[in-house]
Amino acid sequence: MSKDEAFRPKARRPRGLPDRRGAGLAAERAIVDRVLGVYQAWGFERLETSAFEYADALGKFLPDQDRPNDGVFALQDDDAQWLALRYDLTAPLARFVAENYDALPKPYRRCAAGPVWRNEKPGPGRFREFWQCDADTVGSASPAADAEMIAMACAALEAAGVKRGDYVLKLSTRKLLDGLLAAVGVGEGAQRLTVLRAADKLDRLGPDGVRLLLGPGRKDESGDFTKGAGLDSVAADRVLALLAARRASRADTLAAVQQTLAGANAATEGLAELAATNAVLDALGVGEDQAQIDPAIVRGLEYYTGAVFEAELLLETKDEDGKPVRFGSVGGGGRYDDLVSRFKGQPIPATGFSIGVSRLAAALAMAQTAQDHDGPVVVLPFYAEGMAECFALAADLRAAGLAAEVYLGGSGPKAQLKYADKRNAPAAVILGGDERAAGAVTVKDLKLGLALSALAESDREAWKARQSEVQQTIPRAAMVDHVRAILARTEAEK
Amino acid sequence: MSKDEAFRPKARRPRGLPDRRGAGLAAERAIVDRVLGVYQAWGFERLETSAFEYADALGKFLPDQDRPNDGVFALQDDDAQWLALRYDLTAPLARFVAENYDALPKPYRRCAAGPVWRNEKPGPGRFREFWQCDADTVGSASPAADAEMIAMACAALEAAGVKRGDYVLKLSTRKLLDGLLAAVGVGEGAQRLTVLRAADKLDRLGPDGVRLLLGPGRKDESGDFTKGAGLDSVAADRVLALLAARRASRADTLAAVQQTLAGANAATEGLAELAATNAVLDALGVGEDQAQIDPAIVRGLEYYTGAVFEAELLLETKDEDGKPVRFGSVGGGGRYDDLVSRFKGQPIPATGFSIGVSRLAAALAMAQTAQDHDGPVVVLPFYAEGMAECFALAADLRAAGLAAEVYLGGSGPKAQLKYADKRNAPAAVILGGDERAAGAVTVKDLKLGLALSALAESDREAWKARQSEVQQTIPRAAMVDHVRAILARTEAEK
Repeated sequence: MSKDEAFRPKARRPRGLPDRRGAGLAAERAIVDRVLGVYQAWGFERLETSAFEYADALGKFLPDQDRPNDGVFALQDDDAQWLALRYDLTAPLARFVAENYDALPKPYRRCAAGPVWRNEKPGPGRFREFWQCDADTVGSASPAADAEMIAMACAALEAAGVKRGDYVLKLSTRKLLDGLLAAVGVGEGAQRLTVLRAADKLDRLGPDGVRLLLGPGRKDESGDFTKGAGLDSVAADRVLALLAARRASRADTLAAVQQTLAGANAATEGLAELAATNAVLDALGVGEDQAQIDPAIVRGLEYYTGAVFEAELLLETKDEDGKPVRFGSVGGGGRYDDLVSRFKGQPIPATGFSIGVSRLAAALAMAQTAQDHDGPVVVLPFYAEGMAECFALAADLRAAGLAAEVYLGGSGPKAQLKYADKRNAPAAVILGGDERAAGAVTVKDLKLGLALSALAESDREAWKARQSEVQQTIPRAAMVDHVRAILARTEAEK
Repeated sequence: MSKDEAFRPKARRPRGLPDRRGAGLAAERAIVDRVLGVYQAWGFERLETSAFEYADALGKFLPDQDRPNDGVFALQDDDAQWLALRYDLTAPLARFVAENYDALPKPYRRCAAGPVWRNEKPGPGRFREFWQCDADTVGSASPAADAEMIAMACAALEAAGVKRGDYVLKLSTRKLLDGLLAAVGVGEGAQRLTVLRAADKLDRLGPDGVRLLLGPGRKDESGDFTKGAGLDSVAADRVLALLAARRASRADTLAAVQQTLAGANAATEGLAELAATNAVLDALGVGEDQAQIDPAIVRGLEYYTGAVFEAELLLETKDEDGKPVRFGSVGGGGRYDDLVSRFKGQPIPATGFSIGVSRLAAALAMAQTAQDHDGPVVVLPFYAEGMAECFALAADLRAAGLAAEVYLGGSGPKAQLKYADKRNAPAAVILGGDERAAGAVTVKDLKLGLALSALAESDREAWKARQSEVQQTIPRAAMVDHVRAILARTEAEK
């Protein structure tokens, strides 16, 4: 250890890799527990893979690269093979299913929650490690599997604490736009990708901006020019009409979509799938306020092959200029029929949904007045030899179902009470020499003490008169009931 | 994607990095939830750090090494600094406390659960990723903090499902052996380490084997010679007497230890700490069957500076030769006063306890007849157009609190019933064309069907007679109650 002692490392957290604690952490884990509870009630079996996959299994990376460290955290194993930390929970699922295909029930429903890692530039609210909570169905091409994802996502969001009306699940399929593009003469390749990217910007740029990006190109405020997809104005109008086909009900949207697709025979399959999905949504009683068909939903990830979903929070928050904005997406998913097939060389359809746990927790924290997360009851040994007895008092409190701890430091009464405040304790149980001799304890209502502390300056007599409510010396046998009453009062006043 | 499609990766799990699912995963997570529940009730605040730390913060690794990949998974960040995945939950805590020292309540109690990674040779039951569940108190040198760890570890093991009497927490302090060694002229350094290592082998080699390792050295069965610590026989006998000083009660052990340490003044501090810890254990009502003082406990990790703990399961299991053996250690800990000090350059005492979640889950699984982990109720659309209605049936079951799913594949009745078996479903709800027309469903009790299947061969008439119990067509409105009755019967027969 002598070498170690000579070197004193600086204690520092690596960039973009957060420490989580207290109320924020508790909120995130509560979301995970509730969402997993819903997924499991719907028959999705929990599966956890390890943090690592072989880099070639992650899909975007080719095995012959020298250092496939772009976007993921990768390192070489002892046998020189490249390992990478998972960047989502879908790629490891695809590997797992391909590896264990024969042994699995088919279709195979699985759910998972855990951290994923992205080796990207961190920024405010943008981390290199964050949690996702996913559900996937592998081995079913049925539109019912997509409908189930949407209905279950609604149930999961509501279980996580998002009220009905505060969110909407949006649904479409890439086959609509692909079919329309085929009809206007755009095939696979760069031009299609430019159209997809333009469509994805409808929210931000509006129809006029997107029309430019579909056509000749667009110059932004700073003067930068983005080359367009080169569609003629008739084709661009048809794309815009499709993107704008959302109506008040899913049935009306389906009818409107059908009109915009007149003559685009390649889109028929997509439309039929959407209609079938909608029929199951109706059977499941999914309301129009819960799930919409919105042809403007395209999604960024390249691997989606059909249905695409997005979960949007309608909660309002303020942007930097104080302008109210919607919180936006907290999850999404879709059909990725090629991910498992990649390993197996045979078609294996799959669909899934992922909730961004940290983003959802942040949204809920913003929407609610952040619930005060009470610490444990703190037992304070004012009487130096009283430590062992304080432990017995804490044990009594815990036996009654109350979280309790003993102050372990060596400081005096003032520092001990400060410690209790720092722990956000609702109550302190004090054992001094006098209490010990009398078989008593002193119990202090810390939240009431805090509430009254303003009086100490303004009206000292009134403050003094109420101190008997804040702090009472009582027989030890009365401690548990007394503390319980304080906790009930604290809880009721929240 | 064309490059990707040309390359077909092999779906394979990297060595020693497990996939976890089903009952095994559920058992591990249940242990984590229960243990964290106990830790939090004792006032330990949850903290989760990210998977990565700077390599120099992990302690064993020096920052000037070219590739500090030995024992840990390490990689270089964009800015050329070495990151490593945590190999335990203690080193990240030390970094966190050092980084946030002023803002934390002191003493600071924290708990955490999560995976850790060790880049070592994997083997049977030996993984490169596994879960730990830790509690630590930083900033208290009090023996009461150690006693709290032990009492809480007992509560945590019992909450996790280990019955009182099936485990024992063992406690000692390194200061005993260190004090004795000082008295016989052994200082810090290689000779002390050789003695520690010899002491750690008492279980396996017995006193005679350890005496050789303390003295001249020992030749094992294969003829390999291990050099000894070179103590003379009087010194070796004193060490062995200390290691063997465990008696029936903690108080008797303390007295026996005191005798073996006559004249070893440097051990007095350790003995006084043990006595103080024991007083708090008594105050907390920790039974002699729950926690023992055992001077033979030394622990492998170099960073312990005083108290050491070990949680041992007394459950018996069989070794390869069918000989009954104790399961052994499922957790441990101790005092590590130097880990935080390393960053801060000022003394910061700390003590902690860690439960090996996977090992404990394996032990409990072996001890119990593994509980049959029932799958969800499966709803089967025998009638092809019945999918949407099957979803509505599943929704009814879930609304009644029962896990339920719909078969999503395209196969016929026989394959659907096979699927239900593969999902370990207790019951199947079948919707065929006839049922649909009659407003009915057919419900099959799959476990009863399985139990009776032996009859199908041996006594076909009896088997036929009982089929009405296995499978019944009932009005749709009666479905939930009927399924509930089947689940109750299945549960009662476990």
